[in-house]
Amino acid sequence: MGNYFKDNEDLTFYFERGIDWAPLVELTEHGFKSPDGPSGTAEAVELYRDVADLVGQFVADEVAPHAAELDREKVGFEGGEAIHPPRLDAIFEQFKQMELHSMCLPRELGGMNFPMMLYFLTSEIIGRGDVSVMAHHGFHGGMATAMLMFSLREGTTKLDPETGTILETRFERFIREIGRGEAWGAMDITEPDAGSDMARLRCKAVQDERGQWFVTGMKIFITSGHAKYHFVIARTEEAKDPDDPFAGLAGLSMFLVPTYEERDGQRVRLATLDRLEEKLGHHASVTAQISFERTPAFLIGKRGQGFEYMLTLMNGARLGVGFECIGLIEAATRLAADYAAERRSMGKTIDKHEMIADYLDEMRTDVQALRAVCVHGAYHEEMATKLGMHLEHDQGIDELERARIARQIKRHKAAARRVTPLLKYFGAERAVEHARRGVQIHGGVGYTTEYGAEKLLRDAMVMPIYEGTSQIQALMAMKDNLGAILKDPRRFVQRGAQARWRALSARDPLEKRVAKLSATAHAALQHLLVRTAGDKLREHKVTEWPDALRKSWNPKRDFAFAMLHAEHLTKLLFDEVAAEILLAQAKAHPDRREVLERWLDRAEPRSRHMLDLIQTTGDRLLERLDEKEAAAAAAE
Amino acid sequence: MGNYFKDNEDLTFYFERGIDWAPLVELTEHGFKSPDGPSGTAEAVELYRDVADLVGQFVADEVAPHAAELDREKVGFEGGEAIHPPRLDAIFEQFKQMELHSMCLPRELGGMNFPMMLYFLTSEIIGRGDVSVMAHHGFHGGMATAMLMFSLREGTTKLDPETGTILETRFERFIREIGRGEAWGAMDITEPDAGSDMARLRCKAVQDERGQWFVTGMKIFITSGHAKYHFVIARTEEAKDPDDPFAGLAGLSMFLVPTYEERDGQRVRLATLDRLEEKLGHHASVTAQISFERTPAFLIGKRGQGFEYMLTLMNGARLGVGFECIGLIEAATRLAADYAAERRSMGKTIDKHEMIADYLDEMRTDVQALRAVCVHGAYHEEMATKLGMHLEHDQGIDELERARIARQIKRHKAAARRVTPLLKYFGAERAVEHARRGVQIHGGVGYTTEYGAEKLLRDAMVMPIYEGTSQIQALMAMKDNLGAILKDPRRFVQRGAQARWRALSARDPLEKRVAKLSATAHAALQHLLVRTAGDKLREHKVTEWPDALRKSWNPKRDFAFAMLHAEHLTKLLFDEVAAEILLAQAKAHPDRREVLERWLDRAEPRSRHMLDLIQTTGDRLLERLDEKEAAAAAAE
Repeated sequence: MGNYFKDNEDLTFYFERGIDWAPLVELTEHGFKSPDGPSGTAEAVELYRDVADLVGQFVADEVAPHAAELDREKVGFEGGEAIHPPRLDAIFEQFKQMELHSMCLPRELGGMNFPMMLYFLTSEIIGRGDVSVMAHHGFHGGMATAMLMFSLREGTTKLDPETGTILETRFERFIREIGRGEAWGAMDITEPDAGSDMARLRCKAVQDERGQWFVTGMKIFITSGHAKYHFVIARTEEAKDPDDPFAGLAGLSMFLVPTYEERDGQRVRLATLDRLEEKLGHHASVTAQISFERTPAFLIGKRGQGFEYMLTLMNGARLGVGFECIGLIEAATRLAADYAAERRSMGKTIDKHEMIADYLDEMRTDVQALRAVCVHGAYHEEMATKLGMHLEHDQGIDELERARIARQIKRHKAAARRVTPLLKYFGAERAVEHARRGVQIHGGVGYTTEYGAEKLLRDAMVMPIYEGTSQIQALMAMKDNLGAILKDPRRFVQRGAQARWRALSARDPLEKRVAKLSATAHAALQHLLVRTAGDKLREHKVTEWPDALRKSWNPKRDFAFAMLHAEHLTKLLFDEVAAEILLAQAKAHPDRREVLERWLDRAEPRSRHMLDLIQTTGDRLLERLDEKEAAAAAAE
Repeated sequence: MGNYFKDNEDLTFYFERGIDWAPLVELTEHGFKSPDGPSGTAEAVELYRDVADLVGQFVADEVAPHAAELDREKVGFEGGEAIHPPRLDAIFEQFKQMELHSMCLPRELGGMNFPMMLYFLTSEIIGRGDVSVMAHHGFHGGMATAMLMFSLREGTTKLDPETGTILETRFERFIREIGRGEAWGAMDITEPDAGSDMARLRCKAVQDERGQWFVTGMKIFITSGHAKYHFVIARTEEAKDPDDPFAGLAGLSMFLVPTYEERDGQRVRLATLDRLEEKLGHHASVTAQISFERTPAFLIGKRGQGFEYMLTLMNGARLGVGFECIGLIEAATRLAADYAAERRSMGKTIDKHEMIADYLDEMRTDVQALRAVCVHGAYHEEMATKLGMHLEHDQGIDELERARIARQIKRHKAAARRVTPLLKYFGAERAVEHARRGVQIHGGVGYTTEYGAEKLLRDAMVMPIYEGTSQIQALMAMKDNLGAILKDPRRFVQRGAQARWRALSARDPLEKRVAKLSATAHAALQHLLVRTAGDKLREHKVTEWPDALRKSWNPKRDFAFAMLHAEHLTKLLFDEVAAEILLAQAKAHPDRREVLERWLDRAEPRSRHMLDLIQTTGDRLLERLDEKEAAAAAAE
């Protein structure tokens, strides 16, 4: 009888001390006005912990022991429908009994009104048992929550202004159905010719004379695509400039599309499930191709807002992958550590061999850093969302308070936005790396199906691909960072000076080291900036930069150097932000200093290496690319 | 109709200009005395090229197109025998027709007397088609050659002193059988409780009163273990000191064990095939568990020489894995490059995206560096072996010439020994890394079975595990290097000074950069030496080091720092040696400067990073390990 919550000190830390629960719980519980809700933060967190404990026990006893079976049996495809292996149905039947799918829904919609934070923390636990079970689970409650959020945002939900209680909401029937565990959702973006490149999406939506929308087109690689309710991104306007690769984004709209309905107890399909992908791993999760042929659809928000709505969904999904990666690395680490503590070689167990000890130490350290950053990201994302709802729907807030909350929202949003691509990148890359190390630590048996080490690697390999590839995350991080500098170059200069000053003056040696890491990241950004925009900025004062660039910027050519180094920068930025977050923890909780120290020992040489790569390499490759392009142009 | 030889400029370079064929061919052809052999080097190399061409065409047309089928069908196990998928039998039937299995055997044993170098170069081509086919292929001719070598070494082969022709050899019947493609061999080392740690081997051999040997015990993870002829390493003496983890090596002996024979057209098993492993990949290659129960065996050499004989086999096997990795990386690179040249995103094909271009460039560069080092290693290994045979069996060599050849042999041996663990390490690690990148470049479809990218990753994952794990290679490289310094510290000091001097004085900028890389490697070794043995050496002059160490050396404790950094050093040493070899090529062939330059662009920042890791990290981990050990000791 294991318990994946109780056996994990680093995870329980966040329930006990590592999260500033009070503001989040108060917002979630609308100031504890509901007679059915907890009376205060302490009671609420106690309840959350009980849920995590329950999930931890369930996953250890009822999911993990069957992970190999789920992997072997896989989901099947018969008569146009995806077929779950019986074990998967049994697990989800129990999730239903535990009412996990409705845990973050408001009580008035049949839910338990828990914060998303609890959903994320429990999903890490489920991921440790089996990531494909976790992924499928994520398309239940998460999609119902999205329906509610989208409805709030487009203004089709009515709230009681006194208590914040929902009086009616557009997709209530669907939300309740998912909450009861009778259906789930999916998110349909990718098409055969458009993966990361959404401007090329071709799936179309048209409106008939009565205003009813219909979607037509094919979507591929849809996780849990045998879902009933699909969020589908489709084109409602043609791209205006065929030469601009980004012009296509403007004409996209978001739809909610039921893909089947029950008529007289029979399932009637409104969209066709064409096939399931045969995948390397992630076998209990369906990856489907689905075709819509004038399938009735609900437009969400306004036409043309599809990309915006999609980003909201994607942010949540990327945070979700972060937690999924925590679960997977946790599983790989423990599997390897247990094996290494048993296996003897050269007179001792192999966990005492220096190289293996070093691997295990890094695995443990990385999972702690990743968890710290994911919790940080999820917290700020949820605070931003909930403060936004509070601001929009609570009429009793005065002007001054409104301005204060708006500033808070901006800060929370920026904090979440900063870490989301970083954690998706780092989590996914490390999931692969550490799963691979797990295999290696097992030696020969690691290459066989016997211990389950290779299964974790197969499962991990999807992480850097889905919900935006690692390369896309890196480009986003690069774009965000250079963009922020160009918008406010003075602040960038100040931050660099501060980091260098703190690196000299801080009294705490760990704080000094964190500042030095920040100074390294700053130096990398500065080099990228100069190499990217140097020619255009040289003759201008810092204050004139934004204008100077706006006038002479050629994103296609000027950005090449930065694009080439996007992954190097992303690694460095993760190293920095994880150090900052762990430093904040260490200041409040001295027992966390040890975690920070381990992280810095790893992050410091790595960050120096990334700076070195950014400062000394890449020119030859870019020249060669230019030559190739010139040769291709000359040949035409 | 493809051709995996002709389409590969880097590979054909070695046939045309990259190998100093003359001495090797002359030795192999015993000075061209045979009337059936080629008349000189040019004719011989022309012939080798024809064979490579033939293999290149065969693999492109008849192996590669069926790799997915072989992967899917796998080898099976029925009635105590391994069952090949029909396609595998068809391929090996054609190998037999092409007489590939006997290509390196002497003409008088039915072979073609080609150098091992040609075997290695063609095995790279086969590996590009399918590594598991290549691995199985390697257990044919390679094992027959080993039988001959072992017999020469133990003195059971008679040669004509005039022509070097074999008059009789101990295992002639077996060798001819393998040469005809009717049987193959295997190499049985690993046991359930002894993988890398050979001192723990338990398999036993005993001799009856008539002198007949019998082997009893179980061997696991035996590649092509359904072979007829097994080289089995077994214990003939118990370890003397139960506390010394290495004492067990002395009591090991090498046996050749037929595992079945035909009686009246029926196969009668002399050893039991217990099971085949279910593996992540490498599916056309059998990995078996086999049990011997008083199975008759031929002792090779003298009792107690097992470890020595095994090392010879292992060296060849490790070189073989190096070439296997070249084939796999070549396949992954071309698959990814082809896909990236077709797939469009953001207005261009993705091979023009900077990050993807960077990956592909690194894949191409690494495979060229790996090939250069593997060819170098295989060349020196074969020269050392053949010069040794020449020296031993040619009575007409005068004293002076003998001494000269002996010095040559020493140099060749040292050159091969230097690179073998490095190339096994680098090849295996890069095979995994680049196969994984191949999947990533394919994006979503890379995670499916459709394009074959994931199959390459599954195949690659065995490379760092079999024929000595990456960790074992790293430890060997560390031990060899520190050992050499301690034996001749003056030479080490001189070499460092030379490298630093060349880094300043060389007129060729590329030579300067290579010298700087050597200086970096030297600095790393120096740091490791000081940290490993510093306390003991501080008060002694350089000339007194060997003595000082012999007296106060505690390998268990003193070596910990070096063990921890063994992989870092190994990476750095590979970077250095590849640069040296590519520099030698560039000096002779200016068109190779471009390869060296690409290599240096990658190797330089990486080597700085490795030096940084060695110089600044590891203490915390070692302290923690010490504490743990102390705590464990206190608890006992």
